[in-house]
Amino acid sequence: MGKRVGTQTVTIESKPKIISTTSIVGPKEGEGPLKDYFDIVLQDDLNGKESFEKAESSMLYTAVVDSIKKAKLAESDINFIFAGDLLNQITSSSFAARDMNIPFVGLYGACSTMTESLSVASMIMDGGFANYVVAATSSHFSAAERQFRFPLEYGSQRAPTAQWTVTGAGSMVLAKGGDFPGVTHVTIGKVKDYGIADANNMGAAMAPAAVDTIKQHFMDTGKGPCDYDLIATGDLGKVGREITSELLKEYGYNVDDIYIDCGEEIFDNERQGTQSGGSGCGCSAVVDCGYIYKNMLEGKFKRVLLVSTGALLSTTSSQQGETIPGIAHAVSVEF
Amino acid sequence: MGKRVGTQTVTIESKPKIISTTSIVGPKEGEGPLKDYFDIVLQDDLNGKESFEKAESSMLYTAVVDSIKKAKLAESDINFIFAGDLLNQITSSSFAARDMNIPFVGLYGACSTMTESLSVASMIMDGGFANYVVAATSSHFSAAERQFRFPLEYGSQRAPTAQWTVTGAGSMVLAKGGDFPGVTHVTIGKVKDYGIADANNMGAAMAPAAVDTIKQHFMDTGKGPCDYDLIATGDLGKVGREITSELLKEYGYNVDDIYIDCGEEIFDNERQGTQSGGSGCGCSAVVDCGYIYKNMLEGKFKRVLLVSTGALLSTTSSQQGETIPGIAHAVSVEF
Repeated sequence: MGKRVGTQTVTIESKPKIISTTSIVGPKEGEGPLKDYFDIVLQDDLNGKESFEKAESSMLYTAVVDSIKKAKLAESDINFIFAGDLLNQITSSSFAARDMNIPFVGLYGACSTMTESLSVASMIMDGGFANYVVAATSSHFSAAERQFRFPLEYGSQRAPTAQWTVTGAGSMVLAKGGDFPGVTHVTIGKVKDYGIADANNMGAAMAPAAVDTIKQHFMDTGKGPCDYDLIATGDLGKVGREITSELLKEYGYNVDDIYIDCGEEIFDNERQGTQSGGSGCGCSAVVDCGYIYKNMLEGKFKRVLLVSTGALLSTTSSQQGETIPGIAHAVSVEF
Repeated sequence: MGKRVGTQTVTIESKPKIISTTSIVGPKEGEGPLKDYFDIVLQDDLNGKESFEKAESSMLYTAVVDSIKKAKLAESDINFIFAGDLLNQITSSSFAARDMNIPFVGLYGACSTMTESLSVASMIMDGGFANYVVAATSSHFSAAERQFRFPLEYGSQRAPTAQWTVTGAGSMVLAKGGDFPGVTHVTIGKVKDYGIADANNMGAAMAPAAVDTIKQHFMDTGKGPCDYDLIATGDLGKVGREITSELLKEYGYNVDDIYIDCGEEIFDNERQGTQSGGSGCGCSAVVDCGYIYKNMLEGKFKRVLLVSTGALLSTTSSQQGETIPGIAHAVSVEF
């Protein structure tokens, strides 16, 4: 078992390469601080469709197709697509996959899906089961709001700890070789629940999972903050990022100089009224595929730890008085 | 790429062994024709919990824990659990995983989840990333009815093509060796949609996906019906099983002598009022883990093709006029 390191981490010996990415975002994300890093910015968050749900699915489809095209491949070259999203029964992903001729593995990890799909994709590549695979995910503000909270028409007031679901989709194409960033380690998270029940404070609910996975990644690999140029959690927002930073210090890891949260970076919270920051599967997906990947290609970041974070609630679980479990999966990417 | 066979199939060279299974069912399933094959039959479909959703999650938890115990292992021996279910945001699985100390990979493949989780688990095992993994799934009649159709209290009349969601959970433990049935091939399905929009006729919606995957499995591997003692689709019911059988003949494959559908077998439809038969993630899970696995151990079946089948709809997609895409994943198990 040379591929297992510690209790939760595996080494991806063949270092599958991320040979292309596509990020697509809505108009609001396209006005945020990272706008220049996204490949496609929609002018209309319905993307010409008749519902927000269909718009989300079309964004995911576009991201996947565009990333395959960028890699100079055809759909028939892709052996598997690993994808999931927030909508009930991950319909964004399955309806997008319906229009592709690619074997489909549906995943659900809530907002942790970008690193969940990248984790599984990397292991399957390294296992020798594929030449090319796609890892992808999406979310849509308006579809998520009406599914998880209230229809937008209600005009509900937002709490200061609330986060703004990113309208966006990200897709990565993995190949066996090439001069591109490659996946070196994967740390699969455990479900952690520290008793947060407030669906308007998901950053706090997910932070313990992020801390647990990052800490375990360090312990398993013997690495520490100095081994990375960047650690990027998925969508904890300002509130969750501060909690994570503090909790990691209690374990002896000071990550402040290299730690960002994708949800905090994607919006100018003050100007854009996004409270604690962005969230949703699409949040870490577009920041990873856009800002981080492009900066890796340009040499700004060489060793990155991507840690997408998911809150594993449903409206039913919340109505039945359950607290919010969280999960985080970490993927180490080096170039 | 010696591990790839044809376009959708992979060879699992190390043949990871299914060293234990647990099946747990509700009272109605416990009165059906396969009752003697289930490990645990609940007397109360609430399983002592305060909601059907919590009952489903507790069944999944019990199945997983029991299968690990049967394998004479501890939770800490299990490197990953691959699980999913029908409930929004797969809360049965994530809340069950919350109570386990095992790295969790959430999947969504609707009722195809048993072979989806077994497929991914087998590839991860063969890739050398784990010593022991668990593949599991669940469904619950009353939780599914109120989420996808109507609350039971409405007393809605059921269509003749309707199926009855199985209350049950199944769990398999995979290991690298042992004198047990082993996984030899996996065929990952594509999403297929032939325009069925009737949520009371899911067998017809899923049948084309089953046909496509079985046909592709035969084409990829060069195998045919004579290479199997049993082919078991997931939950097409009587209606979908008949369609599948006929469509496979059009491709030149007569499977009639060895083909069953788990949904048709689990209930006595006439006596139990289950119309076209059973459905749900739990359907193929408990039949695979119970009836099929136990008969493999006893030598009745030596070469089995498990083909769980999923209908990838949500209430939202149906309300927005979408048809029902289907998917099926095939896993070849030999002993």
